[in-house]
Amino acid sequence: MTTATNEYPAKAYGATAPDSGVGPMQITRRGLRNDDVLIEITHCGICHSDLHSARNDWGGTTYPIVPGHEIVGIVSAVGDSVTRHKVGDRVAIGCMVDSCLECSHCEADLEQYCKSGGMTGTYNGKDRRDGSPTYGGYSERIVCREEFVLKVPANLPSAEAAPLLCAGITSYSPLRTWKVGPGSKVAVAGLGGLGHMGVKLAAAMGAEVTMLSRSESKRADAEKLGAHAFLNTEDKDAMKAARGTFDMVLNTIPVRHDVVPYLHLLRIDGVQVLVGLIGMMPELHTGVLLGRKVLTGSGIGGLAETQEMLDFCAEKGILPDIEVIAMQDIQTAYDRMEASDIKYRFVIDMESLRAGS
Amino acid sequence: MTTATNEYPAKAYGATAPDSGVGPMQITRRGLRNDDVLIEITHCGICHSDLHSARNDWGGTTYPIVPGHEIVGIVSAVGDSVTRHKVGDRVAIGCMVDSCLECSHCEADLEQYCKSGGMTGTYNGKDRRDGSPTYGGYSERIVCREEFVLKVPANLPSAEAAPLLCAGITSYSPLRTWKVGPGSKVAVAGLGGLGHMGVKLAAAMGAEVTMLSRSESKRADAEKLGAHAFLNTEDKDAMKAARGTFDMVLNTIPVRHDVVPYLHLLRIDGVQVLVGLIGMMPELHTGVLLGRKVLTGSGIGGLAETQEMLDFCAEKGILPDIEVIAMQDIQTAYDRMEASDIKYRFVIDMESLRAGS
Repeated sequence: MTTATNEYPAKAYGATAPDSGVGPMQITRRGLRNDDVLIEITHCGICHSDLHSARNDWGGTTYPIVPGHEIVGIVSAVGDSVTRHKVGDRVAIGCMVDSCLECSHCEADLEQYCKSGGMTGTYNGKDRRDGSPTYGGYSERIVCREEFVLKVPANLPSAEAAPLLCAGITSYSPLRTWKVGPGSKVAVAGLGGLGHMGVKLAAAMGAEVTMLSRSESKRADAEKLGAHAFLNTEDKDAMKAARGTFDMVLNTIPVRHDVVPYLHLLRIDGVQVLVGLIGMMPELHTGVLLGRKVLTGSGIGGLAETQEMLDFCAEKGILPDIEVIAMQDIQTAYDRMEASDIKYRFVIDMESLRAGS
Repeated sequence: MTTATNEYPAKAYGATAPDSGVGPMQITRRGLRNDDVLIEITHCGICHSDLHSARNDWGGTTYPIVPGHEIVGIVSAVGDSVTRHKVGDRVAIGCMVDSCLECSHCEADLEQYCKSGGMTGTYNGKDRRDGSPTYGGYSERIVCREEFVLKVPANLPSAEAAPLLCAGITSYSPLRTWKVGPGSKVAVAGLGGLGHMGVKLAAAMGAEVTMLSRSESKRADAEKLGAHAFLNTEDKDAMKAARGTFDMVLNTIPVRHDVVPYLHLLRIDGVQVLVGLIGMMPELHTGVLLGRKVLTGSGIGGLAETQEMLDFCAEKGILPDIEVIAMQDIQTAYDRMEASDIKYRFVIDMESLRAGS
C-alpha cells in the first residue's frame, strides 16, 4: 500500500468547484510521521457543514475539498512514537485533526479554541507542519496525529458512532458546560442531527426535556426520541404559559431566525445556547435580557470532552438515529438534507467507496 | 401634618405632560396602613430614567408623574404593625415600593422580577392595594410598605447614599451574580452614574478593573475612580491585543450600540452584562457567541441584595461621586445630564424643596 515516498493513495469524494457537486477523486495521504496514525475509514457521518463547505456557501472553501468530519475506522498503521493507539483499534476523528496543544486553551482541554491560529479543521484546513490541505472523511483512509484520534468504546456500533463526533459533541458540550442534570428543564429547538441528539443526551443526563417545534407533526417524533413534552412554538397561548420555565434552551436551528421567543421561555439565569450556524441574528430588544436571561453559543467540544461523550453514550446506550448510504449516493443525501427529509443523520458506509468507483 | 383622612400633603416636582418639563406640584401621600412607613425625604438621586420617564421617551408614562427612585430620608411615623423601622431611623427606597412577596421570585429575594404583575415601581407605578398612582422621590415625603424600606448604615452620608439605590445596586448585582472577586478581570463600558460605580465596586471586590471608553479624555477619570487600566475602544490595535482577556464586561452604555467589540474582549465563558437600557440591539453575527461568549443583562437587585450592597459600600467606604443641587435646578440638571456634563450623579437636597416653592 505504501508508495515510494511512503505516502498512501486514497479514493475519495470531493468537490472541485462550488457548482461541481461532490464526486469521485483520487487523493494522497501523507506518509506517517512519528506521531501519526493511519486509519481505514469504515463510516463517515454527513454534516450540514459538509454540503455548505462543498458549495462554498460560507466563503473560505479551498478546492478541491473532501468533506467529512464524523469519522470512524480501524487503525492500520502507526508512527514510530505512537503510544495511544495500535493496529486494529477502532477509533474516531471529529472536526479537528490538530492544534498547538501548548496554549492556555489547549491546556484547558479546549483545543477547538486553540489560540495559535485556531484548531486545524479535519477538512478545508491546512496541516500545521507542511501547510498541505487537509482532506476529510469521504475517503478510504486518513492519517492523523494520535492525540486527535479518539477511542470508540466496544459497545458503540461504528455506523451509529460516527455522528457523535460532530452532532453528538456539539449538543453534549453545552449541556455539560451549563451543568444540566436531574431536575433541569431543557428545551431543544430544531429537530435535526444536533437536535435529536440534544433530546437524547439531555434526557440521559436526567433532565426533563421538551421538544420545541413549529410543526405539530414533530410531536410523535419528539416522544419517540425520549422527550417528555412537546411545545408548539406557533401556539401563542402555550408559548406564553411556558414563559420563564426552562433552565436551558438548546437552539440547534441552523438558519437565521429570531431567538427572542426562546429567551422568553427561560427562567431567571436560564441560558439559551446557540449551536447552529445562524450567521447574522436579527435585531433584538435587550429588555428581554435584563431579566437575567443568558444568550450564548458553543462550538463542538475539546478532545477530552469528546472522549467523555463517546464513553457516556456507550454507557447509557445513546445512539443517533441514522440512515446508512453508499458513497455514490452523496448527492441524493445532500438533496434530501436540504429538504429536511432525513431522520436524523446520514452515514456513509465506506465499503461502498472501496468496492465502487 | 395629618389631614382629616390621615393623608399627608406633600410638595413635589413632577411633569404633567411630555413637554411640560418638571416643575412644582402638590401631591398627597396615603395615610399609613399597618405596614407602612412615613419618610421625610432628605435626598434623592437623579437617574436617566427620571428624565426619560418625565418626557415619555419610552412610552408608558401616566401623568402627572413625580420621578425619583434613589431616595434617602428619615422615618417620621410608622403603621401599627411595623417592626423593621422606627421613628428617627435613616432609611432608603430604591426602584420598587412593593411586590407580591409570595411568588417564587419574591421568595428567592428577586422581588424586582415579581411574577405577580411585576414589581411596583417607585414612580409611574400603581399601588397594589388601591390602584392609586405611585409618586417618586422628588418630594418632601413618601409612604412605603416597610419591607421595601432599606436601612442606611451609619457611616454612609445621606447624599452619597442616594445614588446607591439605583446606580449602585444595578452595577453591584451582576458583579455578585457572576461571582466577581480577586483574580477577576472586569472591563466597564460607559462612564456615567452606573459605570463609575461599576469601577469602584468591582475594584472593591478585588477585581482588576479596566475602563473602556472611546474618548482618551476619560483616561485620567478612570484612574481617579480606581480603575487599574484604561482601554481606548477606538484604538484597533489595543482592542485586538485585548481580545479574549476579560471575565466580564459590565456594559453600562445607555444608548443603542454594537455590543460585538465587547464580546470579542471576553475570554471563553466570559460574560458581557448589559445594564443600560439600549432598546433594540443591532444585528450581530452569532459566530462570536460560538466561542462560548455570554451575553446577558441585569435589572437592579432584590431587597436583600440591595441591603447587602449598602452594607458593603459602608464597610468598604465606596461612595458615588455626586453633585448636590436644589430641587429648583432640576431642568438644568437634566440638560447637563443629556450633555454628559456631570461626574457622575446629581443628588437633590430636599431641604431646597421644603424651603422653596
